[in-house]
Amino acid sequence: MMIMKGASEDSMSGLSQLELFFRPRSVAVIGVSATRGKIGHEILRSIVEGGYRGKIYPVTISAKEILGLQCYETVSQIPGPVDLAVYALPSSLAPQIIEECGRKGVKNVIIVSGGFKEVGGSNVDLETEVVNIARRYGMRIIGPNCIGVFDGESRFDTFFQSRERMVRPPHGPVSFITQSGTYGVAFLEEAAEDGVGISKMVSFGNKADVDEADLIRYLGMDEDTRVIAIYMEAVVNGRRFIKAVSEVSAKKPIVILKSGRTSLGVKAAKSHTGWLAGSYQVAKSVFKQAGIVVAEDFEELYDTAKALALQPLPRGRRVGMLTNGAGMTVSACDAAEQRGILVGTYSEETRKKLEDALPKFALVREVVDLTGSATSKEYKITMEALLSDDGIDLLMPFFVFQDTPLDEGIIDVLPEMQRYGKPILGVYSRGIYGREVAKKLQMRGIPFYRSPERAISVASYMMWLSEYRATIDKRAIIKAPEIQVDAGKTHEVVKSALSEGRRALLEHEGKELLKSYGIPVAESKLSRSESEAADLADSIGYPVVLKIVSPDIIHKSDVGGVIVGLKDRDEVRKAYRSILENVKKRTPEAKVVGILVQRMAPQGLEVIVGGVRDEEFGPVVMFGLGGIFVELMRDVTFRKSPITEFEALEMIREIRGYQALRGFRGQPPVSEKSLARILTRLSDLLMEQPSIKEIDLNPVFAYPDGAIVADVRVLLE
Amino acid sequence: MMIMKGASEDSMSGLSQLELFFRPRSVAVIGVSATRGKIGHEILRSIVEGGYRGKIYPVTISAKEILGLQCYETVSQIPGPVDLAVYALPSSLAPQIIEECGRKGVKNVIIVSGGFKEVGGSNVDLETEVVNIARRYGMRIIGPNCIGVFDGESRFDTFFQSRERMVRPPHGPVSFITQSGTYGVAFLEEAAEDGVGISKMVSFGNKADVDEADLIRYLGMDEDTRVIAIYMEAVVNGRRFIKAVSEVSAKKPIVILKSGRTSLGVKAAKSHTGWLAGSYQVAKSVFKQAGIVVAEDFEELYDTAKALALQPLPRGRRVGMLTNGAGMTVSACDAAEQRGILVGTYSEETRKKLEDALPKFALVREVVDLTGSATSKEYKITMEALLSDDGIDLLMPFFVFQDTPLDEGIIDVLPEMQRYGKPILGVYSRGIYGREVAKKLQMRGIPFYRSPERAISVASYMMWLSEYRATIDKRAIIKAPEIQVDAGKTHEVVKSALSEGRRALLEHEGKELLKSYGIPVAESKLSRSESEAADLADSIGYPVVLKIVSPDIIHKSDVGGVIVGLKDRDEVRKAYRSILENVKKRTPEAKVVGILVQRMAPQGLEVIVGGVRDEEFGPVVMFGLGGIFVELMRDVTFRKSPITEFEALEMIREIRGYQALRGFRGQPPVSEKSLARILTRLSDLLMEQPSIKEIDLNPVFAYPDGAIVADVRVLLE
Repeated sequence: MMIMKGASEDSMSGLSQLELFFRPRSVAVIGVSATRGKIGHEILRSIVEGGYRGKIYPVTISAKEILGLQCYETVSQIPGPVDLAVYALPSSLAPQIIEECGRKGVKNVIIVSGGFKEVGGSNVDLETEVVNIARRYGMRIIGPNCIGVFDGESRFDTFFQSRERMVRPPHGPVSFITQSGTYGVAFLEEAAEDGVGISKMVSFGNKADVDEADLIRYLGMDEDTRVIAIYMEAVVNGRRFIKAVSEVSAKKPIVILKSGRTSLGVKAAKSHTGWLAGSYQVAKSVFKQAGIVVAEDFEELYDTAKALALQPLPRGRRVGMLTNGAGMTVSACDAAEQRGILVGTYSEETRKKLEDALPKFALVREVVDLTGSATSKEYKITMEALLSDDGIDLLMPFFVFQDTPLDEGIIDVLPEMQRYGKPILGVYSRGIYGREVAKKLQMRGIPFYRSPERAISVASYMMWLSEYRATIDKRAIIKAPEIQVDAGKTHEVVKSALSEGRRALLEHEGKELLKSYGIPVAESKLSRSESEAADLADSIGYPVVLKIVSPDIIHKSDVGGVIVGLKDRDEVRKAYRSILENVKKRTPEAKVVGILVQRMAPQGLEVIVGGVRDEEFGPVVMFGLGGIFVELMRDVTFRKSPITEFEALEMIREIRGYQALRGFRGQPPVSEKSLARILTRLSDLLMEQPSIKEIDLNPVFAYPDGAIVADVRVLLE
Repeated sequence: MMIMKGASEDSMSGLSQLELFFRPRSVAVIGVSATRGKIGHEILRSIVEGGYRGKIYPVTISAKEILGLQCYETVSQIPGPVDLAVYALPSSLAPQIIEECGRKGVKNVIIVSGGFKEVGGSNVDLETEVVNIARRYGMRIIGPNCIGVFDGESRFDTFFQSRERMVRPPHGPVSFITQSGTYGVAFLEEAAEDGVGISKMVSFGNKADVDEADLIRYLGMDEDTRVIAIYMEAVVNGRRFIKAVSEVSAKKPIVILKSGRTSLGVKAAKSHTGWLAGSYQVAKSVFKQAGIVVAEDFEELYDTAKALALQPLPRGRRVGMLTNGAGMTVSACDAAEQRGILVGTYSEETRKKLEDALPKFALVREVVDLTGSATSKEYKITMEALLSDDGIDLLMPFFVFQDTPLDEGIIDVLPEMQRYGKPILGVYSRGIYGREVAKKLQMRGIPFYRSPERAISVASYMMWLSEYRATIDKRAIIKAPEIQVDAGKTHEVVKSALSEGRRALLEHEGKELLKSYGIPVAESKLSRSESEAADLADSIGYPVVLKIVSPDIIHKSDVGGVIVGLKDRDEVRKAYRSILENVKKRTPEAKVVGILVQRMAPQGLEVIVGGVRDEEFGPVVMFGLGGIFVELMRDVTFRKSPITEFEALEMIREIRGYQALRGFRGQPPVSEKSLARILTRLSDLLMEQPSIKEIDLNPVFAYPDGAIVADVRVLLE
């Protein structure tokens, strides 16, 4: 079932092979019907009617000529060389015909047909077989189960969506990689209606061969592409994907929408961190860590890609707003507040200037309301004033284009404002006429939105990317994209646990491991008798807590295996006996190693730090507030290891409950540096100890001057 | 500044007067220019070109004839009676001219002009003056600062948005009340593009006279209106609004979008509940309590109103999905999971039936994927099977209309499916052709959405309304819409605090108040000496907590005024002395009444219960998880008093952290009934004690078999 990637994947020749998907000199369409509406027929018609200038070979046994083109019964009968074959026959015939393509010397294949992996059963193997055949001949495959490609410049596409039903967009700066053909169609339609240009689109469905990583590298080199948008359902080989991203994202913005978000309910929960592994939260955190803008739905994906393609990034979070109808700006201000965007930050001087220059009906407030009487003249005055103000980073003009006083001079006035070099995002109040005007303005570079909330989302993503780029040298992504494993470093406690066939470390072993990485743990010692426990408690200092140590007991409290707040020898001895009795009663079969005597950590703010070897992204670390916040609110964040201190601090600051760390109910703020140090060290530990599958430091108590791990659970593999 | 409502507001004659806004027999437009693009001119043109059949009188001194109509210099010169005057002159002239309208016998006035309250300063009084003039003559006013009205049947509108720029929608079942003219325009444009009919639209801007309550009552009687949509910025007289809603919402769905959400940051926080008063959270909770569907943005408002107008309510939360392109359904399933909507709940029998009846390419899974090869025939087979299945409450078909195999037979097939009586919401993958097909289908009754998330939102609102209506007899809204105040019940502790000029109760007074309403409090007694404290502790039982009692100390812990966990007489005596020392040191000026000795409540789940006299909605009660959840997460919910036990339980169950009450980390679930009892009793207390401004029961400890209030803060007014 394993498919080996060809050696050429990263090479220039690999990239130029991908180029042939979009600009083939010749194309064979395999499985063409003479009947309109049939998929093969419509693909051929799209190629013919789109203006493609290369050679076209319909392959079919059902006709001699279709759409004025001579048909061939087999691929081998085609007279000239074939750069691209588009396959539209049933999946069962694929191995035979792809083999034939290989023998013919076809360079690349797009398999539009479904009936492969997505169906399950033996069709999974069928897909593997086809890919292996292609590899043998050095052919690359897009698909199966897809609609193929679109090239804005060559006007080549392989869609079975006819031009009567689907408008193709103009050529331009946005490229789109999508696992779903449906979203591919929707994206291009939106762009066409907006007059926004597309460089390339790829729908690769099951992505049996060519995947996101291939295409990101390719589009990274593509001069026409300024922004890459991605729609993804399943993450496959996340580390490879992130590596490709990290090579490109500093030059070209990448925006992603990830759907197919895992249902966590069905997972067996072992550790907290393990429970969340493979979840959307992990993917989202790791994407952002790599500098990818993460959209939450399709509209955000398209909206943001459009803005990033057309406009520069803002330098800060301060937005200037003006309008000829207040309603939408009220919504915009609500949304701005939620996203930490500031409105009305222009200077007193600008305010006076506007009040002098504008007619009496204008309201110069946080939002400049020019009212329904506004003409393009008032817009111009206001936009110039706001854009020249140092307190404004981004201009957001709102328009009720339906308001009759507003003259069409605005179509010239607004695009001129780009001379200030600040980003501009327009919002309009819908309607057919409104869409027409907005389209004209978009074709002159100003992205437009029908919804104030959408425009604010886009602004916030632009701000996020701008802030990310400003701190890129403080991030680990560029410095250490690959895992460094030093097997020699495998820790003794891990070795011995593995040699005994254990799948988990005992608590004192886990603590020893943490200590060796410089992570502060609550001091504890293992006792094997009542009196030893009392002696250890004396030497550690009171109050202490006693905890059962057994390889068979994971949830210690549930079996009465933990007693806290012990203040002297007598209490310790009594607790020792109680624990043994409890354990004997409730889990008589459990093997008891001893009882841990631990100095009680003073009550601090409870947080959780975790690590897990994620199936797709490898080692990732997690941070969150403790207890209920992890389990009920899922208020946690992740990063792929390795991480820098900067990234660790960013993790700490991005959880929703961060305010709790800043001091709460009169408590002093806790030391974020100390927590960050635990995170970076745990990240190192995960990188160097490949046998560790999951690790929970829970709880960790955070204090104004430090932090200490009170308990740890380590699962091995 | 107070404006008295006319006596006629609730009467039938009041309603028929409102009718004359939409269907006047004659209309005067005051302030008409001969110049195109001017507001007065465009209003006249809209009335003339819209097909209005009554008499039209342009009033202006600048021309003798405009658009073929004879002009009049003043209202008094108009020969016949005038039902409606539309005012478009500067605000400063309004008093004089509205007075003239009154003398002329004009029935109603729409003031389109701005320059009133929204400008501030003396213009606020100008607005009041104008309203008072109108009241004297029995005229009703819509506006100022608005675009007026639209009537779908009479085709009368007062918009200065010309027909070249703004398409008017057909006549139909949706009415829209809006504070923003911009959203009014956007709403009608959307409806026009969708082919969805509008009965009436009112933009009332500053709503100086006619407001939501008036219009809800009017539209409640309007036979053409099946659904009322509302856009609101400021809530004014919330109780009156809710009363009108409660008269209508059981018959006609009401959907609201509330913007202008208060920034809480700037508020001085006294109690937790007081801090949140006047917030969007209060309004949202109270709206829902009254059966209003609360939309989160304009698109949800329009989308939901459309669905409620066209389709029946679902009986449950189970959605059947089918598609010819999988991408959008993956997003839909993500969104469904988030909103507690079930997908793929049809029977095994239906699955078999579909597998037999459909071609091999179809994937019969949770979502039935007919793939890009689907025709209307496969859609029909699948929709019939799903709709006949008892496990499906709502059908959500997805369409890539661009896919050429899908024939236009679907335009007949889909509407036929309404015969099953289950709601149907369609989703399509955008584009010009897609919009055309969707419009045809919408005109035949099936609402369509461009986004899977939007369709899922709409479905969830329909489900919510269905569930609300099923439980309406268990709610307080119908039984007791008005506040019952029995002044004789004013509690002694409140009386004596007020007589001493205090603005807050002391803790032991607050607890006495709660006890008299049957709310369980942690037992406590006031001591005035060290030995009395020790004696009280003996009689109450250990462990105890000591707390300072002083009218000058609100935050007791901050001054060292609380010591917990005291186990015997000696500890109590020592603590007594410490507290007095602490207080003397840190707030030497504070008057000390004594020290409260309280039995320490066993640690339970910490929740907060509160009450506040909200400026707009009157007494409201609050529920939330304790501590950090209130302050950082704002995970709280509200209800307007009075509430029933059913509503109290609903409050408890709707907070995000509700799982914590159901048992957490091996803890048993807490008694929701006990918490509900505290809520209903606090609600009664608020109703009967009008001097109580804010009250926080915080913390309340919840246990498996009860709940107890550990501390209370009561502010008076």
